[in-house]
Amino acid sequence: MSDQIKAKVAAAAEESASTKKADPKASSVDIATIQMLAKAQRDNVETIFDRAVSMKPCNIGEQGTCCKICSQGPCRLPLPKKGIEGKDTRKGLCGATPETIAARNFARMVAAGAAAHSDHGRGVAEVFLTAARKGTHDYGIKDEQKLLEIAPDFEVPTTVIVDGPNGEKIEQMRDIYDIAEEVGVKALGQWGQQDGEIYNAKRAPKARYELWRKLDVVPRGIDREIVEIMHRTHMGVDQDYHNIVKQCTRAAIGDGWGGSMIATDLQDIMFGTPYPTQGEINLGVLKQDHVNIIVHGHEPLLSEMIVVASQLPDMVDYAKSKGAHGIVLAGMCCTANEILCRHGLPIAGNYLQQELAIVTGAVDAMVVDVQCIMENIANVADCYHTKIITTNPRAMIESGHTTHIEFDEHNALEDAKKIVKTAIDNFPNRHGEAMIPSAKEKMVVGFSYEAINYHLGGTFRGSYWPLNDNIINGRIRGIGGVVGCNNARSMHDSAHLTVVKELLKNDVIVLTTGCNAMACGKAGLLSPESAKVFCGPGLAEVCETVGIPPVLHMGSCVDNSRILMAATQVVKAGGLGKDISDLPAAGSAPEWMSEKAISIGHYFVVSGVYTVFGVGLPVTGAPRFQKHLFEELEGIYGGMWDMIVDPYEHAQAMIRHIDKKRAALGLDKKKERVLMDMADRRQLEEVA
Amino acid sequence: MSDQIKAKVAAAAEESASTKKADPKASSVDIATIQMLAKAQRDNVETIFDRAVSMKPCNIGEQGTCCKICSQGPCRLPLPKKGIEGKDTRKGLCGATPETIAARNFARMVAAGAAAHSDHGRGVAEVFLTAARKGTHDYGIKDEQKLLEIAPDFEVPTTVIVDGPNGEKIEQMRDIYDIAEEVGVKALGQWGQQDGEIYNAKRAPKARYELWRKLDVVPRGIDREIVEIMHRTHMGVDQDYHNIVKQCTRAAIGDGWGGSMIATDLQDIMFGTPYPTQGEINLGVLKQDHVNIIVHGHEPLLSEMIVVASQLPDMVDYAKSKGAHGIVLAGMCCTANEILCRHGLPIAGNYLQQELAIVTGAVDAMVVDVQCIMENIANVADCYHTKIITTNPRAMIESGHTTHIEFDEHNALEDAKKIVKTAIDNFPNRHGEAMIPSAKEKMVVGFSYEAINYHLGGTFRGSYWPLNDNIINGRIRGIGGVVGCNNARSMHDSAHLTVVKELLKNDVIVLTTGCNAMACGKAGLLSPESAKVFCGPGLAEVCETVGIPPVLHMGSCVDNSRILMAATQVVKAGGLGKDISDLPAAGSAPEWMSEKAISIGHYFVVSGVYTVFGVGLPVTGAPRFQKHLFEELEGIYGGMWDMIVDPYEHAQAMIRHIDKKRAALGLDKKKERVLMDMADRRQLEEVA
Repeated sequence: MSDQIKAKVAAAAEESASTKKADPKASSVDIATIQMLAKAQRDNVETIFDRAVSMKPCNIGEQGTCCKICSQGPCRLPLPKKGIEGKDTRKGLCGATPETIAARNFARMVAAGAAAHSDHGRGVAEVFLTAARKGTHDYGIKDEQKLLEIAPDFEVPTTVIVDGPNGEKIEQMRDIYDIAEEVGVKALGQWGQQDGEIYNAKRAPKARYELWRKLDVVPRGIDREIVEIMHRTHMGVDQDYHNIVKQCTRAAIGDGWGGSMIATDLQDIMFGTPYPTQGEINLGVLKQDHVNIIVHGHEPLLSEMIVVASQLPDMVDYAKSKGAHGIVLAGMCCTANEILCRHGLPIAGNYLQQELAIVTGAVDAMVVDVQCIMENIANVADCYHTKIITTNPRAMIESGHTTHIEFDEHNALEDAKKIVKTAIDNFPNRHGEAMIPSAKEKMVVGFSYEAINYHLGGTFRGSYWPLNDNIINGRIRGIGGVVGCNNARSMHDSAHLTVVKELLKNDVIVLTTGCNAMACGKAGLLSPESAKVFCGPGLAEVCETVGIPPVLHMGSCVDNSRILMAATQVVKAGGLGKDISDLPAAGSAPEWMSEKAISIGHYFVVSGVYTVFGVGLPVTGAPRFQKHLFEELEGIYGGMWDMIVDPYEHAQAMIRHIDKKRAALGLDKKKERVLMDMADRRQLEEVA
Repeated sequence: MSDQIKAKVAAAAEESASTKKADPKASSVDIATIQMLAKAQRDNVETIFDRAVSMKPCNIGEQGTCCKICSQGPCRLPLPKKGIEGKDTRKGLCGATPETIAARNFARMVAAGAAAHSDHGRGVAEVFLTAARKGTHDYGIKDEQKLLEIAPDFEVPTTVIVDGPNGEKIEQMRDIYDIAEEVGVKALGQWGQQDGEIYNAKRAPKARYELWRKLDVVPRGIDREIVEIMHRTHMGVDQDYHNIVKQCTRAAIGDGWGGSMIATDLQDIMFGTPYPTQGEINLGVLKQDHVNIIVHGHEPLLSEMIVVASQLPDMVDYAKSKGAHGIVLAGMCCTANEILCRHGLPIAGNYLQQELAIVTGAVDAMVVDVQCIMENIANVADCYHTKIITTNPRAMIESGHTTHIEFDEHNALEDAKKIVKTAIDNFPNRHGEAMIPSAKEKMVVGFSYEAINYHLGGTFRGSYWPLNDNIINGRIRGIGGVVGCNNARSMHDSAHLTVVKELLKNDVIVLTTGCNAMACGKAGLLSPESAKVFCGPGLAEVCETVGIPPVLHMGSCVDNSRILMAATQVVKAGGLGKDISDLPAAGSAPEWMSEKAISIGHYFVVSGVYTVFGVGLPVTGAPRFQKHLFEELEGIYGGMWDMIVDPYEHAQAMIRHIDKKRAALGLDKKKERVLMDMADRRQLEEVA
C-alpha cells in the first residue's frame, strides 16, 4: 500500500469509527459478495451494506404517509392505530388524507420510473432514426426481420405496389432503410403525441385493449401522461386516490407498452434480437492480468460501441503495450444484461456488487451511463485506482474523482475508443495485486419472446403452443415473471433465489430480467442442467425435453416489455383464456429498489397480472389506498398489487394465484388431453 | 342549528379534543380571516390554522435532506453540524450527498410546478385551437390585436400577398381565424416538441436569449424537459447538483416563457387582455340574501363560462324563485384574479381563506378546478350546507360530500348553467343566518404589460420610457415583483404586506400577482389613493401624476409571465442596460407554498432576477447546493435565489440588490437629466 493510500485509509477509518459495520455473511448469499465485503471492511472502505446497518429508514416515509409536496409541510402523518375501529382522522395541513398522500407518492414513483424508461427509449428512437437516415456509420439495421414484424404496428407499409414490365401491378418490398425511417419517425412521435392512442396499445390481446379503451386509460402520448401525473400530484389538485391511480395507469402503460417496448424493439433491430447464448457471471470473470473494464448502467447505445472498441486489434495491442494480456469487458446491472444477451460477454455482478467490483482492485475503469449508479462508487474508487467514467450529459457525478467523457452517438466509436484507452492507461496504476474472487457461473441467456417462440415450437413452425399445451396438461403449473433490483434493506440475492426456487419446485416456469436474472445466473439457475435439481417433475421434464433452463433470461429491466409480449403470445396461442388476466401467471419483484420497479409493477398489474413486491411498499400507512391497489384493482384490471416480505410466503401467494387461474380455466381437474388441429387453433387465435 | 349539525359538531368536538387550536389574532392580519377563524373554532370546525399549530413540519425534510427516491430509504440525513470545519461525510445509502438529495428534491418541485402550469397552458391551447376552428360556440377570438401581436412570435404571417385588379401585388390581412388556427397548432406543438427551441425564448431580451443558447438551456419542448427532470432525479442518474440545476433551468424556462406565457396570451386573446378596472375584495363581498357562488382554482376556461351563466336572466330569475335577491359570483385564489381582471367581479379571498369562506355559512356552492384546493374544504363543507363541486377530470376529491360536474369545453355554457343551478338549488338549505364579515376593500386591477405600456405612455405612443425615465432620474428606485401563495406556517398576509409596504416606502414600485395581489387588495394597496399613504415621495409623485396604484395587479400566478414581458419591455425601452439582469429590480415570494412557486422562482432567477423567498427553502441542509443557488448562479445568470424569513430584512435585501444594480448602471450618482430624442431611443432599442 502506498503512503497516499495509507493516509486515505486512515482518514476513512477515522470517519467510519462511529458507524456500524455490516456482517458480511448476513449481507448476501453470494460468496463473491461476502468475500469482497469483508475485504472492503479490512480496507476500511465503507459500502452500502455498512450504511444500511448504520441508518434506519424513516418509519413514516416507509409507510407512504410523509408528504413534502408543499412548503407547509413536510407533514408526517402518525402511524395508523392498529386494532381500533373508527374513523381515520389523520390529515396533512391542507386536509390531505393518508390515502391522498400515499397515492401521490406512489404516482410520483410511477412518473419517475416511466420517465426513466421513457428517456431511455427516446434516446434509442433518436439514434435509430439517425441510423435509418444513414446519419451515422456506427449504427445500422441488423435485424431486418424484426423491423418488418413491427412496422405494421406503426402502420408503416413494408411493401409498395409498382407497375410491372407488362403494366401489371407488382407488390415489391420497400427499401429497408425507408421502412426504418418511417418507423423511426412514428416511434419518436409517440413521446410528444398529445392525443389519440399510442400505437402499441393494440399489440395487447384484444380483450385487454378493449378494456383499456372502456376505462379510458390508453395513453395519449408517453410524455404527456407523465407530466399529467406531476400536475395531478401538485398540492390541491387530484385528491381522490382512485383517480390518481387511473392516471398512473395511463403513464405506466405508456412505459411498458410504449417507451420500454419501443426501446427493446429498436435496440433489437439495431443490435440484434437476442437468441440463446452462453455466458459467465460474477466477480470471478475479472482477470488479474487483463485490463478490466466494467460497463455499468442501462443503455446499450454506449455499451455496444464499447464492445466493438474493446475488441479492436489496436486496442488489444495497446493494452499489451501497457503490460496487460488483453482486455476483459464485463457488464454490470442492466447494461450487463444487454451486452450479455447479444454478445455473450461476461457479467461482473448485479446492483449491490458495484462498489465491491471496485474493491477487488482489479477494475481499471467503470464506465457508467444512467440509472442505478450509486454515487458512492466515486468514494470507493478514490480508495483504489479505478477510474469512474461518466458518459451521459444527463448523469454526472460531482466528485474530483470521476472523469466525464461525453458519448455522442454521432461519433460513437471514436468516443468508445477514447473510453477504452483511458481504462488501458489506468492499468499500470493498480495498487499492487488485486484480489479477484474465484466465484463465477456459466449460464444460458437471451430468451427474447421471439427466441422462446422458436425454441418451443421448433424450426418448422415457431409457436407458444407447446408451452400452453404443457400448462394445460399440468406439467407446467404456470408462469412466474420474477424481476427487479437488489435492495440493501434485503439480504443480497436471498429473496430472489428463494422465490425462484420455490416456484421451480412447484413446476412454475420463471421468466426473468434485471438483477433477478443475475442472481439466478450466479446461483446456477440459468443452466439447463439446473432443471433436474430445482424443478418439480413436470417442469423438469419439459425443460429437459426442450433443452432450456427453467429460468429464462429475457434481458434488462427495459426488456420487461418482452414479458408482456410473451404473455400476449401465450394468450394468442390459445387454450388459456382470452386475456393476460386469464393466464395462470404471476409477477414478482422480491428485492425491488427503484421507482422504475413501481412503474413496471403497475403496468403488469393493469395488464392483468397479480404482482407481488418484497421489501415493503410505501402504502401501508394508507389502508384504503392499499386495499384499492391490493384488492379493488383485481375487479377492474384482473391484476392487482401485493406485498409480501417473506420470500417463501411471497412465492406461495403467487402459486395460489396461479392455481386460482387454473381453476377458473377448468385446469384443476384431470382432463383428457385434446389434440388440436390447425382449425381449432386458428379459431382460438381469432378469439384472442 | 339543526340536530344533525349539532351531532356533527359534537363528533367534531370529540375528534379535536386532543388537537391544539390556533390563536386567531396570531394567525392573520386580515380582520375577516380573524373573525371567521374564531367562528370556525366556536363551531368546532377544524381548519388549517389549527392543524398548523398541532403538527410540526419534519425538521429534516424542511432542510431538503430527506430522500425517498428509492425503497432503500427513506434516508434522512442528520442536520449539518454547525460551526465545525471539516468534510461533510453525510450520505444516503447509495452515497447520495446532501447536495444531491436536496437538488433532486428541488428539481422535482420545479418539475411539478412546471407541469401544473404546463397542463393549464395545454388545456388553454387545446380550447383555443377548438375555438379557432370554430368547434365551439362558447369561446371565440376577443382580442384580435393581441393575436396579431403574438402571431409573428410563432412565425405565423398575419398578411398574405394577393394579386390586385391590375396584376399588382397587394398585401392583405389574413382571415383572423386562419391566423388563430395556425397559432393554435404551433402553440400546442410546443408541448410535444422534441428538438430545437421553443418559440418564445426569442421574446426575451437578445442578450438573455443568447446567454441561454450559450449555456445550452433553451428548452427543446415543454413536456420533454419536465420528463427529463424526472429521469435525472431517479435513483443513480444525475448526481451533480450543478447539472441537475441546469435541467431545472430548461424546464423552468419552458414554464415561464413557454407554457405559462402561452396560457396567458391565448387566454387574453379568447377572453380579452386585462385593462385597469375596479373591483372589491374580501369575504364581505358575499351577500346574505343572494345565492353566493365561489369559483376557486386556476383555470379561466371554466370560470369565464360561469360568469356568463350566472348573469343569464333565467338563472337570476331561478335564484329569485328560490327566495334569493340575486346571484353573487366571487372568485378565490387565482381564478379570482382571472375573472376580476377581466370582468371586475369580486374576490372572496386568497388561499388561506378557502375554508373560512365556507365557515360564513353563506356559500351555496364552491366550484373548484385545479391547484391549491385544500382537501379539507370537503370536511368543512360537511359542517355547513355548502356544496363542493369538482369540475375537472384531473382533480377529484374523495369524499361523500363533493359533487362532480365535469366541465367539457365543447359544452361549456350548458355545463356552467348546470353548476350555477346546483348552487341555486342549495340556497334554501342554509343552516339559518349566515355570518358574513363586513370587511371588503375597493381596488384597481388589470395591469397587463400592455396596459402598463398604455397607461405610462399615454394614448399617443404607448411606451415604457416614462417608467425607465423615472427610474433613471431616481423618483422610482426600482421594480419589485412580489408574488406567491399564502402559507399556514407564516402569519396570513403579514409577510406579504410588510415586504410590499417596505418596498413602497423606499420608492420601489411593485408588480404583483396571485395571493400577494389579493393580500395587497385587502389592505387597500391596490388603490391609487394608497400611494400618498405608503410610498416614498418619488414613487408617490409618479403614481399620483399617472393615476395608478403603487402596486400593479397583473393577474394570476400563471400570469407571472406578464412580469417577464414587462421586464423585457423595460429593457427594450432603453437606458437601463441590455438585459433583465441589468435592471434595478428584484423578485419576492414572502409566503410561498406550492411547487409552482419554485418553478416560477427559478425562471425568474435564470431570467436574471434576484429572487427572495420567505417561509423557508428545503436547501439549508445542503450548504454547497444552497451556495450554488444563492451565490454561484449570479455569476452564470445574473440572477440568484435567496431566502429570508423576516419580511423586513427580506425587503431590505431586495432594496440592496436594486441599489447594487443602480450603481452598476451609474444611477447612484446625481446626474443631469438627458433629454432623449427618437434617434437616441432607437439606438437603445437596437442594443436591446
